[in-house]
Amino acid sequence: MSSDNPTSGDNQQETLVPRLELDPMWVVGFVDGEGCFSVSIHRNPHVRRTFGWQIQAAFQVYQHERHRVTLEAMAQFFRLGRIRPKGPASRVLTYSVWAASDLEEVIVPFFEQYPLVVKHDDFCKFAWIVRSMRQKEHLTTDGFERIARLAFSMNDQGKQRARSLDEVLAGSSETVRRAHPL
Amino acid sequence: MSSDNPTSGDNQQETLVPRLELDPMWVVGFVDGEGCFSVSIHRNPHVRRTFGWQIQAAFQVYQHERHRVTLEAMAQFFRLGRIRPKGPASRVLTYSVWAASDLEEVIVPFFEQYPLVVKHDDFCKFAWIVRSMRQKEHLTTDGFERIARLAFSMNDQGKQRARSLDEVLAGSSETVRRAHPL
Repeated sequence: MSSDNPTSGDNQQETLVPRLELDPMWVVGFVDGEGCFSVSIHRNPHVRRTFGWQIQAAFQVYQHERHRVTLEAMAQFFRLGRIRPKGPASRVLTYSVWAASDLEEVIVPFFEQYPLVVKHDDFCKFAWIVRSMRQKEHLTTDGFERIARLAFSMNDQGKQRARSLDEVLAGSSETVRRAHPL
Repeated sequence: MSSDNPTSGDNQQETLVPRLELDPMWVVGFVDGEGCFSVSIHRNPHVRRTFGWQIQAAFQVYQHERHRVTLEAMAQFFRLGRIRPKGPASRVLTYSVWAASDLEEVIVPFFEQYPLVVKHDDFCKFAWIVRSMRQKEHLTTDGFERIARLAFSMNDQGKQRARSLDEVLAGSSETVRRAHPL
């Protein structure tokens, strides 16, 4: 598990500030409304072992900065994750968990124990991708393609993506061909 | 309680279609994300007893039409309310409870038993207004003004309102002066 616990090293404050204790089912309902399970795939020539594409799974929850305390309670609940502005001038905050170990060991098991209602299908794909990547399946051409196809089928068929699936898959095939010429 | 139960008269279907059973705490979390407690005040010259202004409290939950089943589960959970498109060409659906008796007897007690986290302050004002109106307090000038002031302090200080609080209060005072000239 990563060390990005927002409350670590802050024990004095923890005892002074009353905590907002969240119920697990409330967390599921809130994430069904305001949360997102995503797998981004973007160009990064330095990541040669995944064909110049970086795959990043993330669990995020959004909220206006006036409700920052809710995201802090979420971070306390999972005992990990970071809260940051969504953009440089944004008044929307994002609670994010990116670390692969945190996703696999905490976030995925939680939502398997407490199933989502609205985002259940996307979560199942997300969980599969998180575990596949921990098992290094994305380092093979077939594994990379399976993950990319599944990622693009998430969140309303990837309508918000800047790259097309064909573009991502063409890049991986080309890289493989060049690395292992027939 | 009103008769707008979406499952009434549909017992056969109820036994055939598997229900999505919602947990109360999930409902609270989801409403904290996607729900809204509002009190609208708009011009209606026919409503003379409230100075030409119509006050309407409503509990609403929004969701894209592809998640209609979630709103249907919400309607089954509360056993009341209606699901309609947000607008004529909108793909967003609104689950709404408007009836004063449903709000006072079902919605308000539920969120008192299972407290909201993000929308708790707005809900408290909403509950106060719903009960005040059931006790006819909005029919007096003072009661109308208290309700209007509280309504305008809800949902980010009423930034989305078409009318200003001064406009609403000026209208009520003028009507009263005309009805009871000094």
